[in-house]
Amino acid sequence: MENRKLRMGMIGGGKDAFIGAVHRIAANMDGQIELVCGALSINPDVAKESGRMLFLDDDRTYTSYEDMINAEAALPADKRMDFVSIVTPNFAHFAPAMLALEKGFHVVIEKPITLTFDEAKQLKAKVEETGLLLLLTHTYAGYPMVKEAREVVKSGQLGKVRKINVEYLQGWLSRLSEREGNAQAAWRTDPSKSGKSGSMGDIGTHAAHLAEYITGLKITELCATLNTVVKGRALDDDGAVLLRFEDDATGTLIASQVAAGEENALKIRVYGENGSLEWAQMEPNSLIIKWLDKPMEIVRAGSGYQDRLSDLERANVRTPAGHPEGYLEAFGNHYRNFSHALRARLSGEDTKPEWLDYPSVDDGIRGMAFIENVVASSNSDQKWWKYQI
Amino acid sequence: MENRKLRMGMIGGGKDAFIGAVHRIAANMDGQIELVCGALSINPDVAKESGRMLFLDDDRTYTSYEDMINAEAALPADKRMDFVSIVTPNFAHFAPAMLALEKGFHVVIEKPITLTFDEAKQLKAKVEETGLLLLLTHTYAGYPMVKEAREVVKSGQLGKVRKINVEYLQGWLSRLSEREGNAQAAWRTDPSKSGKSGSMGDIGTHAAHLAEYITGLKITELCATLNTVVKGRALDDDGAVLLRFEDDATGTLIASQVAAGEENALKIRVYGENGSLEWAQMEPNSLIIKWLDKPMEIVRAGSGYQDRLSDLERANVRTPAGHPEGYLEAFGNHYRNFSHALRARLSGEDTKPEWLDYPSVDDGIRGMAFIENVVASSNSDQKWWKYQI
Amino acid sequence: MENRKLRMGMIGGGKDAFIGAVHRIAANMDGQIELVCGALSINPDVAKESGRMLFLDDDRTYTSYEDMINAEAALPADKRMDFVSIVTPNFAHFAPAMLALEKGFHVVIEKPITLTFDEAKQLKAKVEETGLLLLLTHTYAGYPMVKEAREVVKSGQLGKVRKINVEYLQGWLSRLSEREGNAQAAWRTDPSKSGKSGSMGDIGTHAAHLAEYITGLKITELCATLNTVVKGRALDDDGAVLLRFEDDATGTLIASQVAAGEENALKIRVYGENGSLEWAQMEPNSLIIKWLDKPMEIVRAGSGYQDRLSDLERANVRTPAGHPEGYLEAFGNHYRNFSHALRARLSGEDTKPEWLDYPSVDDGIRGMAFIENVVASSNSDQKWWKYQI
Amino acid sequence: MENRKLRMGMIGGGKDAFIGAVHRIAANMDGQIELVCGALSINPDVAKESGRMLFLDDDRTYTSYEDMINAEAALPADKRMDFVSIVTPNFAHFAPAMLALEKGFHVVIEKPITLTFDEAKQLKAKVEETGLLLLLTHTYAGYPMVKEAREVVKSGQLGKVRKINVEYLQGWLSRLSEREGNAQAAWRTDPSKSGKSGSMGDIGTHAAHLAEYITGLKITELCATLNTVVKGRALDDDGAVLLRFEDDATGTLIASQVAAGEENALKIRVYGENGSLEWAQMEPNSLIIKWLDKPMEIVRAGSGYQDRLSDLERANVRTPAGHPEGYLEAFGNHYRNFSHALRARLSGEDTKPEWLDYPSVDDGIRGMAFIENVVASSNSDQKWWKYQI
Repeated sequence: MENRKLRMGMIGGGKDAFIGAVHRIAANMDGQIELVCGALSINPDVAKESGRMLFLDDDRTYTSYEDMINAEAALPADKRMDFVSIVTPNFAHFAPAMLALEKGFHVVIEKPITLTFDEAKQLKAKVEETGLLLLLTHTYAGYPMVKEAREVVKSGQLGKVRKINVEYLQGWLSRLSEREGNAQAAWRTDPSKSGKSGSMGDIGTHAAHLAEYITGLKITELCATLNTVVKGRALDDDGAVLLRFEDDATGTLIASQVAAGEENALKIRVYGENGSLEWAQMEPNSLIIKWLDKPMEIVRAGSGYQDRLSDLERANVRTPAGHPEGYLEAFGNHYRNFSHALRARLSGEDTKPEWLDYPSVDDGIRGMAFIENVVASSNSDQKWWKYQI
Repeated sequence: MENRKLRMGMIGGGKDAFIGAVHRIAANMDGQIELVCGALSINPDVAKESGRMLFLDDDRTYTSYEDMINAEAALPADKRMDFVSIVTPNFAHFAPAMLALEKGFHVVIEKPITLTFDEAKQLKAKVEETGLLLLLTHTYAGYPMVKEAREVVKSGQLGKVRKINVEYLQGWLSRLSEREGNAQAAWRTDPSKSGKSGSMGDIGTHAAHLAEYITGLKITELCATLNTVVKGRALDDDGAVLLRFEDDATGTLIASQVAAGEENALKIRVYGENGSLEWAQMEPNSLIIKWLDKPMEIVRAGSGYQDRLSDLERANVRTPAGHPEGYLEAFGNHYRNFSHALRARLSGEDTKPEWLDYPSVDDGIRGMAFIENVVASSNSDQKWWKYQI
Repeated sequence: MENRKLRMGMIGGGKDAFIGAVHRIAANMDGQIELVCGALSINPDVAKESGRMLFLDDDRTYTSYEDMINAEAALPADKRMDFVSIVTPNFAHFAPAMLALEKGFHVVIEKPITLTFDEAKQLKAKVEETGLLLLLTHTYAGYPMVKEAREVVKSGQLGKVRKINVEYLQGWLSRLSEREGNAQAAWRTDPSKSGKSGSMGDIGTHAAHLAEYITGLKITELCATLNTVVKGRALDDDGAVLLRFEDDATGTLIASQVAAGEENALKIRVYGENGSLEWAQMEPNSLIIKWLDKPMEIVRAGSGYQDRLSDLERANVRTPAGHPEGYLEAFGNHYRNFSHALRARLSGEDTKPEWLDYPSVDDGIRGMAFIENVVASSNSDQKWWKYQI
Repeated sequence: MENRKLRMGMIGGGKDAFIGAVHRIAANMDGQIELVCGALSINPDVAKESGRMLFLDDDRTYTSYEDMINAEAALPADKRMDFVSIVTPNFAHFAPAMLALEKGFHVVIEKPITLTFDEAKQLKAKVEETGLLLLLTHTYAGYPMVKEAREVVKSGQLGKVRKINVEYLQGWLSRLSEREGNAQAAWRTDPSKSGKSGSMGDIGTHAAHLAEYITGLKITELCATLNTVVKGRALDDDGAVLLRFEDDATGTLIASQVAAGEENALKIRVYGENGSLEWAQMEPNSLIIKWLDKPMEIVRAGSGYQDRLSDLERANVRTPAGHPEGYLEAFGNHYRNFSHALRARLSGEDTKPEWLDYPSVDDGIRGMAFIENVVASSNSDQKWWKYQI
């Protein structure tokens, strides 16, 4: 391909949206991508105003995803978008993603990948059929020390993994905010927009993804309990799960959005035969390794230790140790890795360095399966539920 | 009673024992108690040498608990011990405790209170029959900030309790140490000496006690899974439990002694409607309170804030904030509170200030019931197990 | 002005440069600015390659700042850059800044503002003469919790400020890296490129700026000692300063680049009559407030506490509490605030909301004065040195 | 000597005293020492009541130190005290210490050792003349991780020591408490009782001792500034010192009792060529070692790492890692080590294992010299003050 930025379109993400703004910062950060068009809102006024705030041409500001995808597909190759980023609520992921793929556009999509497991399977089939790229923004897998944790486990230093404890605690739904004009709360607690699970779908899936990503072990059985703590709410806002993984590892997963006082407390601990590792999203630049036979170590993102940090970590950090990178940089890593992969694809290169790792449609399938299995287990009197996928 | 130190005898706790030494430091610390006799070992040489290291008279160094209790009972009132402290392995708690009570001695006993639930019930009946005092050393309830946490919950500031997450993680049984000459490991992993549960009995009971002590809520149902991670071990060394409490609170309890790299990581979080509290044994002088609507606070043991810390906290701290107190002081608080209660008893006073709180036989019953219920649940295919007591 | 991104040119910042890349991320992040031209290197090959990596047109890739400024000035108004960002080593700040101002371009400049105090004064005069905008990237003042700290002091909650302790510790110059091919180390330890101070100029100036920014108090006297710890080095790599401020406040400043094991440990504590605040760059989203009469609070960036966080904080954070923002976002805040101010200027608006705060030429003057006074004091046998400016 | 506890007398430490109670807990803890007599107060009622609270015989409760020392000296050898512990305010250390030594009693004494430097020198001469043992309770040198830090430096792992930063911050004198009935504040801010320095004598001496103890380097020059921040106070309540040590090391020392919100924040950092160590009294069971070329380590008191922790550390810890020990245990270590040394002395043994280290009269001399030199430097216009001793 010629030497130019990749061109992105966005569906959703109008002026007051939260996650759309995050996607744009993440896409902008490394100077690899430019936003060229948007179906930012179905409200024409909002769409137009939002487009202008983002310096889009009025004629590339659309009010429906169909219009945008069709119009962009009709543009000459040197002008039309390369990929589309879908940042709508869960119920509005599937249709635009399918259409974009059909029209030949690569796709970035917020998690959970779709509203239902069935949609996820259809989407996976379409991705495989078209051979196009898909990035699923499981943000937390973008952190350099999460990647380092994965490499530490893979290296075998900890020995065989025995136990995994992961938790994701937030407090922002401690009250019935969906009745108090909080738009974020409203759609996330509405089954028709969010899916069959509330908190477990919204944040439990992140926790499950993190556990499987770091350890490389898949969940095989689980015993779940979902709670709706706040009276009047339509979906679960709290839950806990006992887990069994491949290779005899066991674990627990706790997810709650009624943990009053918690901010965005995603944390994982992995215990092996020789030691353990601990990573917490709110202090993301440290990876704590506690050894059985020697002092605990705190490994820091961006450190220059010779022969110690993995290539995967090095490729996902922008500044030296002590210059904290955070959530937006982790998000940006997904966009950057995706953009490098896409650029390689568009240039006809087929090598994909290992560090170009980013979550994709298979992670989306695992996430939807997690929701299915957790809800089924929670509704069952049977203790252990075999994971079905 | 006359103005003198209380006189303590000790059963178990010979020269290489761990917990016996801890009991002695705790009893010594505040100058209220003197050790006057001991059945420190059934090995006569060890008993004698241990007694001398503790400056006991040779004629009050015994080699069996029966000898000691009988001999002390035969001494004149102004010489014989006031109470006996039983620091043997679990299987050797019941018989000496029963005999001591029968002979009129008050009792201090390590937890779990007995080897079996049935013994615990018998012991409770004996305590009630004799009206004598019993201190069960659930150490962690002795920490001032644990007591403060209890008062914060009781005050209603957090609102109704919704969620309780407690965990107790150690790594010292990550290898098959019981086969490598580790005496502590050997008896704790031997069902005939430790009881029907390993880690859940040894440390899970502490976690359960802490949760019920702080919140005032009793466990009503649970769903447990116990694991024996290290091959060749006879008892569980790891486990996780989903919990239901009175008043619709739910929770989780994790206990493991194969969490490689963990030291003595007991930690609890309690979530209410308006905020939450967090306490970790390894940083025991801080109580973290996270509010839904205002900045998180770190309340510190020994602080002089007017009208903020509870009387219960103040009564259980010896130094101003910033002079860290720890495990031995928490342990000492139990002995001190017990000694004040005993002194009041011996003096014929019947007032017992609230701060003289210490765990007793009812806590012992709850602990044994916890073991029973967790083991039964773990062996069951039924998801939720009604707590039986 | 029309609805478009602001156009930036860059001087310095070729492909292996550290701080140039940081400036670009900061400028990109919020989608307000596009890079349109660069004099990225004086080496033509590096300049060209760097330009292509940044997707610049070859004809706007220059090899000298004069060429770029002159060529851009000759372009039509709807194409030429709006401002230039100067990210060269210290000795190469002054000339391009002066020329840019003369040609009517606004300026962003790395700190310290110039090589010498005299240059700084000339530059200030030129800024005042032209009325153009200048952003000096004292990064750490861009953090939201630094701004919150400033507002807390200003509010008077802490009472009169009594003591200020600030320190900036790095370890990366612990060895004679400038002789081992480390380009960053080489120019920073070379007086002809860095100026009359090494570490005190490079990082001590950040610390001094932070102290004055947060407290609003100016240094009035100091007693400094500069050390060259690593043998063979040409400038100071370590130092400590006793400080006197306006209004009888006193303090200390420690700066070192031979603090082996430290990463980028900038930390400040401000003590008032009623309490104190503490902020550390490596955990930037927390502001610790320790009160004399109530529990310490940890105030968190992005929190939704009603009526608690300042407007200044709110305007400089992008995500809710618990989604850590870091160094790049702090840097980005300067660019964003500058871009809003510049856009207002270009649109003929003259209102400047308070939150559009960013360091400017007066901060540059204070920084150069700090270097002058510290070096003079260090060379003097006199204890207290009156701050001269 | 026969197999018995050592017998202690106490001067000062009546019922409301702070430090006397601490000394008794420290002496009791390990069961090596019994309190047999006391001149606890010059007020006869307080003396008697205090004695009874400590279960002393009325006839060994005295109202003057002379009475006690003389009476005890007249008792038979198998009854009289072995040593005396002096816990009065500074002005009342010297006379009882001299008399005790003259009468053949070993001495424990609070720091600073005397009111004046001259007294300290006389006391040292008396100690040398009599050959009796003296323990000076520089508490913080009793912590196991302080001893470990000393061993780490001594081992050479960090390379040559380059920089030492020590600080001791308290906030309890932020107001004019000495006028509000605070007895602790009253004598500590009264030159006739406390000596020629306030905070620098009270806590700065601890900081200086810690720095010299850990590094083995002596202060050779200093540049001090003392402040009296609270109006109406008679002595310094705040200060900062630039330091030069032997072997070209430099450093800083900050001590303040008007650091509002601080509790008892003694902290030291030592920077060597290869790495650095950090220890903070309020988290005393961790020693942080930051390496230049590998991840930082957190070494924990009581850990079982093979071949890693020093014998000195092992000998000064009572429980396994994760069972926090604190201030009282550190204090207790001094009493325990002193008691072992004294027992060896009384038994005619002359071996003194290295771990029997405790501060003694030479540390007292260093402490008084520190006060002298700091006050002289603060009063001088000369920048660097040669340390005189």
